[in-house]
Amino acid sequence: MTEKTDKTIGMSEEELNARHAEKMKKIKAARDKMQATKTDEKGLVIVNTGKGKGKSTAGFGMVFRALGHGMKIGVVQFVKGSWDTGERWVLEKFPDQVTISALGEGFTWETQDRARDIQMAKDAWEQAKAMILDDSYDMVLCDELNIVLRYDYLPVSEVIDVLKAKAPMKHVIITGRNAKDELIEVADLVTEMEMIKHPFRSGVKAQKGIEF
Amino acid sequence: MTEKTDKTIGMSEEELNARHAEKMKKIKAARDKMQATKTDEKGLVIVNTGKGKGKSTAGFGMVFRALGHGMKIGVVQFVKGSWDTGERWVLEKFPDQVTISALGEGFTWETQDRARDIQMAKDAWEQAKAMILDDSYDMVLCDELNIVLRYDYLPVSEVIDVLKAKAPMKHVIITGRNAKDELIEVADLVTEMEMIKHPFRSGVKAQKGIEF
Repeated sequence: MTEKTDKTIGMSEEELNARHAEKMKKIKAARDKMQATKTDEKGLVIVNTGKGKGKSTAGFGMVFRALGHGMKIGVVQFVKGSWDTGERWVLEKFPDQVTISALGEGFTWETQDRARDIQMAKDAWEQAKAMILDDSYDMVLCDELNIVLRYDYLPVSEVIDVLKAKAPMKHVIITGRNAKDELIEVADLVTEMEMIKHPFRSGVKAQKGIEF
Repeated sequence: MTEKTDKTIGMSEEELNARHAEKMKKIKAARDKMQATKTDEKGLVIVNTGKGKGKSTAGFGMVFRALGHGMKIGVVQFVKGSWDTGERWVLEKFPDQVTISALGEGFTWETQDRARDIQMAKDAWEQAKAMILDDSYDMVLCDELNIVLRYDYLPVSEVIDVLKAKAPMKHVIITGRNAKDELIEVADLVTEMEMIKHPFRSGVKAQKGIEF
């Protein structure tokens, strides 16, 4: 039943099983060895960037995972409309653990009012900063902060100073495309989401549960 | 206060604001135009692949978002130990909406028993298939299915046949590195998560809330 590769064609099921057991044993040994060298535990600065989907979604996924570990979490929205009512609905089920700072506002494509957008970005950052520096929070998600930094509404140096001042065990997640080099430099974990295929290209509109 | 680029050095705040308003107006017009061409609504086959972090996490993020829209969701674990107690804890808060099919087993690096792994993969797939073909589910997450397909524990053609037979509005999310070309071909949305920087490289061990 199993499809065979060039290498394994002609092998009996028993041979395939034996070959597999040997291979898995080696992989396991390599993994165990690698894990054994990892001894530090520390709070991470995590950046999800790139043009693909899943930057914020993976950030929220981490928040939900942390919830299950009893962590206290702050979530700050930097771009208006980037948030889904669905995510908010679930987050609001955990009022003891999650603080949402959405301002209802933030940067938006709708206003074309730069002065207002800068003020909103600064206000949102003040809230994020307070949670990053408050030791009672275990994790802070700065959703779409990269957009604000990219437009220079907020100096990246100010964000980096705060990240350097955070408690060692605190995790900070920053999402949005076009992450600044300076931020990538100080981050511990950086992932670039690349779009390989997108339904918008074939005329499918944004829909609930997927896009928002 | 705002950092200036080469182009904008020397401009007054008023000039910057006017320039910005003009630029945002153009972006908004382009976005509105693009959105207007998108009229279809359909269930998507979504693939999160690549070597980076966030493939499963973004999948779970979508599940949590869909929860907030009242959707009914099936979640199937194909690789043992890939799941976090944290994610499960949150999912279990929504028993009316979420069906978890973890089997407690599935493919694992630990056993080195190929025959058993194949059986587990097939069992997990039977459960996923049932939920994909059951019209009462709005979304099915097949977590780490790509791993199972990659090892040819399950023929990709069988998975594709089921995806083609699903109800038009149903969303199916498939995660795991090394997605097969045939699967990418039938998918609507494919994202590759690329690792730019990873803390394991600097001796930090896996830790709760982040890795598991």
